[in-house]
Amino acid sequence: MFEKLLSEFTIKSMTLPNRFVVPAMVTRLSGEDGFVNQDIVDRYVRFAQGEIGLIVVEAMAVHNAKSGPLLRICGEEYKPGLTDLAKRVHDNGPSKVVPQIIHFLKIARSGWRQKIEDLTHDDIRLIIQQYGEAAARARECGFDGVEMHMAHAYTMSSFLSKRNRRPDEFGGKSLENRLRVPLEVVQQVRKHVGDDFAVGIRFLGEECIKGGYTTEESALIALRMAEAGVDYISLSAGGKFEDAIHRDGEVLYPYTGYSGDRCMPPADYPDAYNLHMADAARRMIRSQGLETPVIATGKISTPELGESVLQEGKADLIGMARALLADPDIPKKIREGRADTIMKCIYWNVCKALDETFHKVVCGLWPKGHIQAPLSDDTVAPEWPSTESLKVLARTNQIRLNWEKATDNEEVAGYEIWRSEDGGKNFSHLYSVQVTMYTDNLTMSGRQYAYYIKAYDLAGNKSTPSNIVKADVPLRIDLLAQPTGAVQA
Amino acid sequence: MFEKLLSEFTIKSMTLPNRFVVPAMVTRLSGEDGFVNQDIVDRYVRFAQGEIGLIVVEAMAVHNAKSGPLLRICGEEYKPGLTDLAKRVHDNGPSKVVPQIIHFLKIARSGWRQKIEDLTHDDIRLIIQQYGEAAARARECGFDGVEMHMAHAYTMSSFLSKRNRRPDEFGGKSLENRLRVPLEVVQQVRKHVGDDFAVGIRFLGEECIKGGYTTEESALIALRMAEAGVDYISLSAGGKFEDAIHRDGEVLYPYTGYSGDRCMPPADYPDAYNLHMADAARRMIRSQGLETPVIATGKISTPELGESVLQEGKADLIGMARALLADPDIPKKIREGRADTIMKCIYWNVCKALDETFHKVVCGLWPKGHIQAPLSDDTVAPEWPSTESLKVLARTNQIRLNWEKATDNEEVAGYEIWRSEDGGKNFSHLYSVQVTMYTDNLTMSGRQYAYYIKAYDLAGNKSTPSNIVKADVPLRIDLLAQPTGAVQA
Repeated sequence: MFEKLLSEFTIKSMTLPNRFVVPAMVTRLSGEDGFVNQDIVDRYVRFAQGEIGLIVVEAMAVHNAKSGPLLRICGEEYKPGLTDLAKRVHDNGPSKVVPQIIHFLKIARSGWRQKIEDLTHDDIRLIIQQYGEAAARARECGFDGVEMHMAHAYTMSSFLSKRNRRPDEFGGKSLENRLRVPLEVVQQVRKHVGDDFAVGIRFLGEECIKGGYTTEESALIALRMAEAGVDYISLSAGGKFEDAIHRDGEVLYPYTGYSGDRCMPPADYPDAYNLHMADAARRMIRSQGLETPVIATGKISTPELGESVLQEGKADLIGMARALLADPDIPKKIREGRADTIMKCIYWNVCKALDETFHKVVCGLWPKGHIQAPLSDDTVAPEWPSTESLKVLARTNQIRLNWEKATDNEEVAGYEIWRSEDGGKNFSHLYSVQVTMYTDNLTMSGRQYAYYIKAYDLAGNKSTPSNIVKADVPLRIDLLAQPTGAVQA
Repeated sequence: MFEKLLSEFTIKSMTLPNRFVVPAMVTRLSGEDGFVNQDIVDRYVRFAQGEIGLIVVEAMAVHNAKSGPLLRICGEEYKPGLTDLAKRVHDNGPSKVVPQIIHFLKIARSGWRQKIEDLTHDDIRLIIQQYGEAAARARECGFDGVEMHMAHAYTMSSFLSKRNRRPDEFGGKSLENRLRVPLEVVQQVRKHVGDDFAVGIRFLGEECIKGGYTTEESALIALRMAEAGVDYISLSAGGKFEDAIHRDGEVLYPYTGYSGDRCMPPADYPDAYNLHMADAARRMIRSQGLETPVIATGKISTPELGESVLQEGKADLIGMARALLADPDIPKKIREGRADTIMKCIYWNVCKALDETFHKVVCGLWPKGHIQAPLSDDTVAPEWPSTESLKVLARTNQIRLNWEKATDNEEVAGYEIWRSEDGGKNFSHLYSVQVTMYTDNLTMSGRQYAYYIKAYDLAGNKSTPSNIVKADVPLRIDLLAQPTGAVQA
């Protein structure tokens, strides 16, 4: 069932145990000092326990610029902590682990921000050098490779951007010019780490801002990076400063506008919303006879979907950020034939909201107070107190559900809501909550809905389905039969 | 070759001669008085001469609110002009013609705008009534149907919007509530025009703004509209006030932000960029056993692409706005086997820029000064003065082309630039210009490009290809071999 997803994949000198990738995610677990701490180690060890093929550690700065909580790899003093992090990940499972290295520009609470158009050639030379040295440190620390951050709102992405307004050889209308500095970074990194060390890149498949580039250019960027010897290509979308919402007294945060939604598509977006970007890049690369692997990301919500993406040849590896934050054990669970115990991400973006407000990033599905995903070997599932635990109240504009608390030997972690839109024949997972009520606002009058609930515990063991409730929402006859008179004052 | 595209299609009492639709486009050809004038008649007669299956006349107001140049259908006094318009279209070809009817809210140069949250129940009742009366007038004027504008930034679209913040039964989180007023309008229109008159709707497949809806909801809206008896569904995208760029002293115009690009995807977007929206709506409607036809729009640039969309079952009708503005004769030309004489839209959005700056909307490919597409029966193609007319200058970051002027018995209208990326085996149309030079900024060093040019006249007759020029752009060895030192100060 998960044949491709569970197959090994070799990138240069690292062989991943499966095709799962956890892309770099901001955690805000480090201090402003930039050193690895216990919370950071715990976060990545937890991913390793879940047997995730490739773990990309959150972005760490190649330079010593002021910022909020952010890891650093800009000097020798950071190496002991990073070395320990790599070792601890390796000790706890089969995962390979690479750090994402980033350069960003200055930003102020006033709304002012430094732009690439402000950089002198000396500045640029220094940044290129810093990337190379940071990559060398990554190798020295025992990581399996290194990933260059060229996505979202940061320095390298701004060079690649179609809104790069530099008048010199590093910008303007020409894509070749916009590629120059990023390609210099690739070469410098390669020079520092050698030919046998995996060097990946993450950049935008689409900028998702006015005047930004689309797959028409990102496929060319991907090709050029493949030609330049990059070992894997990981695509993101959006996350730009240009449409970010400025809040008085706070620094501008690049995931607060529409392009932020496109970066982390919320619940009301279709699954695999950004898949066409990976597909376009991969087709371009393959059309030129190159085999560079492409990682697809963006609300690939289930292993079933991930497997189908691989089977269709739209990507080589499956990146899941929020889904693996919610349940780092997805790879392990499907390997053991326990896909039914996966704690499903619902994409309500509590993680994104915490990030935006500069709080420690946790999953909203984890028990209150936990800063890591729960770990439990329990195998006993929750139970319902009665055969009539679930109740329904159907209204013309919404359906309200409430149910009795389930019981568990350990702890009930939450409830999955399953819905049928064909009167009870086929059910699919709609949402999950930690409380005992839910309002479905996407119901339409004149249609039949049915629901059941499953309770799940910390290990993801799920109860039998509750009783099924059906909701027949009458068509709004008043509205349809008396169009003018029906508007109620 | 164009079997589906050239097949008839029946919607209620109107049988379209083919599957081409020209969606409603702002022309700014009318006066502020809102009456049909000669320029308006000429614009739509030109579409009829091209044998376009369904012509949707630009939005006309159902109410007597202040605005710039905009047609009106809000009173009996507008009927003679509209009746003449419908008759003139019918007299000049096989096209069917429907007006698009719109309600919009007030807007001021200060940036203030009235919102649906400001409307009282009496206001809403009046708007619903105005839609019904306008639709009745459309029928009385001899149109073949009527299309309700529920897209972009206007009143009905704002009710459907996920950003509808009304706290009453017409808004909030519930989709059913957001649908109420639009459904009242559908019912009211139907009551006024009868069961045998085609009533279409145009709404957004995606809002393309932060917090806006996606296909997850637009497919449900489409289904509900089909259930409510709408006769066709035409999907657009974006075009919202929420991300529009406010220019001091001018009224906010809803196509100036990112969502405006998504509404009219420019040259650097992939073809058929919004097709997934029509596909999602159609699949939802068909899954419930309904046959309501769906019109796909959004940079469907060629009849070949339109045919493949129909063959794949992703839409029932092909909407082309900019492509048919550039050349209204596409349907006629392909029926006559003259697809090679189509004047190809290049999506550089001169039309959009004219609209945004409140000028008369023309196509940038038309000869200077023309406010309608040229009409010519000429069959003699332009010729090149020599066999070496085209010259090339290859640089590392761009390729510059220039060529001698072609000659024609009538008038050379422009030049098509054709490019090969495989050294001269396969060529595709890259762009068209009216001058005799072009700079290609999307070339990458280390790759082989080849070009030829075709000159075309007012009828679209094309010259033989010019001489082929090849450009071998050397890979930037300096950059790749010497990563640190290569940055030139």
